[in-house]
Amino acid sequence: MTTIESKENPLFKEIKKLKDKRHRTLEGKFIVEGLRFVKEALDSDFSVEYLIVCDESKDRFNIDYEALKSYTKVYLMKYALVKALSETENPQGILAIVNKKNNQSIKDNGFYVLIDKVQDPGNAGTIIRSAHASGASGIIITKGTVDLYNDKTLRATMGSIFHIPIIEDFNYSIVESLKNKGYRFIVSSLEGEKNFYDENLKENIVICVGNEGNGISSEIYSMADVKVKIPMPGEAESLNVAVAASIMMFEVVRQKHVN
Amino acid sequence: MTTIESKENPLFKEIKKLKDKRHRTLEGKFIVEGLRFVKEALDSDFSVEYLIVCDESKDRFNIDYEALKSYTKVYLMKYALVKALSETENPQGILAIVNKKNNQSIKDNGFYVLIDKVQDPGNAGTIIRSAHASGASGIIITKGTVDLYNDKTLRATMGSIFHIPIIEDFNYSIVESLKNKGYRFIVSSLEGEKNFYDENLKENIVICVGNEGNGISSEIYSMADVKVKIPMPGEAESLNVAVAASIMMFEVVRQKHVN
Repeated sequence: MTTIESKENPLFKEIKKLKDKRHRTLEGKFIVEGLRFVKEALDSDFSVEYLIVCDESKDRFNIDYEALKSYTKVYLMKYALVKALSETENPQGILAIVNKKNNQSIKDNGFYVLIDKVQDPGNAGTIIRSAHASGASGIIITKGTVDLYNDKTLRATMGSIFHIPIIEDFNYSIVESLKNKGYRFIVSSLEGEKNFYDENLKENIVICVGNEGNGISSEIYSMADVKVKIPMPGEAESLNVAVAASIMMFEVVRQKHVN
Repeated sequence: MTTIESKENPLFKEIKKLKDKRHRTLEGKFIVEGLRFVKEALDSDFSVEYLIVCDESKDRFNIDYEALKSYTKVYLMKYALVKALSETENPQGILAIVNKKNNQSIKDNGFYVLIDKVQDPGNAGTIIRSAHASGASGIIITKGTVDLYNDKTLRATMGSIFHIPIIEDFNYSIVESLKNKGYRFIVSSLEGEKNFYDENLKENIVICVGNEGNGISSEIYSMADVKVKIPMPGEAESLNVAVAASIMMFEVVRQKHVN
């Protein structure tokens, strides 16, 4: 088997393009990096299109090449080229190209988290991680939210990206389906009228959080069933959006725990 | 009044040194950047040693130079030099050099958050922001925790650094005082035996969170009164440390709200 050694190689070029959001959306694929994260991808029910491994990494991490080949196609690539594709300073030399899932189905019962125009990649990833931990049924993304398949967001999910359905809802059709199924939209806002802790969160709900600077968009605000405020006894102006979302999700966990 | 135009200027050199943690510790000072954050510093009860302003920024932000001078010393500096000192790409051209506070006193009643060897600057800053919002009495920092006065942490606090006491406890003497005052140490750990939501958090407590990878240190673990686990109905391995800390702080808020 030959090693990819040139930047003119079509595979190298394809992966390089996937560093760009536009191409990820167009191709429906994304890059996952590092031994642990690649393993998560292989162990998940996502389809891994192919793997890139360096000779050095094969030895360093004791990678069983033949075992890998039973999962998907595997290509060897020169370390310097993998480094050029990587977002980290000292890449481990292993990449997976993973196909996005097109999740569109909505459960009849559950709780969802709607991420509305959140911009910071780390915040978006942290919300996904918390949603997975809290047992949420899925994540709804509105138009204007940061692309979730960039390196920073993926890393902040700590692998949770493979374990919770992500539903892109750029025309509010999913929001409408949820409304029709009787889900209550709970919007967190600094102007919320109700104390968040007075809400019953055991039934079908959608927890909605908005942009770091501007809060929830007018579109989502107008369809809210309840506008709540997390009480802040201290004088801080606001909470980090990933923190606010997580506090709300884990209040769901608490209420279900208490019965 | 003359404008500082040379990198050989002693003030320029002093500020440049303060970009380094060692010098911040030695001098007991830190740098605050940007119009809003500098205003927060001036409005707080921290002592601002001096301000640096660019001519361009004075005009751009309509800064009342004479009013500023009633607060503290003000120096003019060439924009290119301020840019060399700044951590942002397009600095607003206004800096404050602020004296750290030496907080050591402990309240007889309240709740504290102990940050034990947390490494990520953003996580540390987010914990401080949430602690301020939740009405915590102060933050305890153990040895090995990231320096809180770096640019990233300061920014993540969103100004809360000026509004909540920060107590460095490098020899566990503060921990001991808290113990003597009857504070209960609640340690969040993946190996915690108790469900976090079963804990009564209304009395004097210290919420302890640990390092991103290794969790709480053995020193703090050994003095824990209760080891709890935040239940995670989803299969995620863990939560982001700033999220876990915030969930715990806001459970305090909830319990106090409910009575």
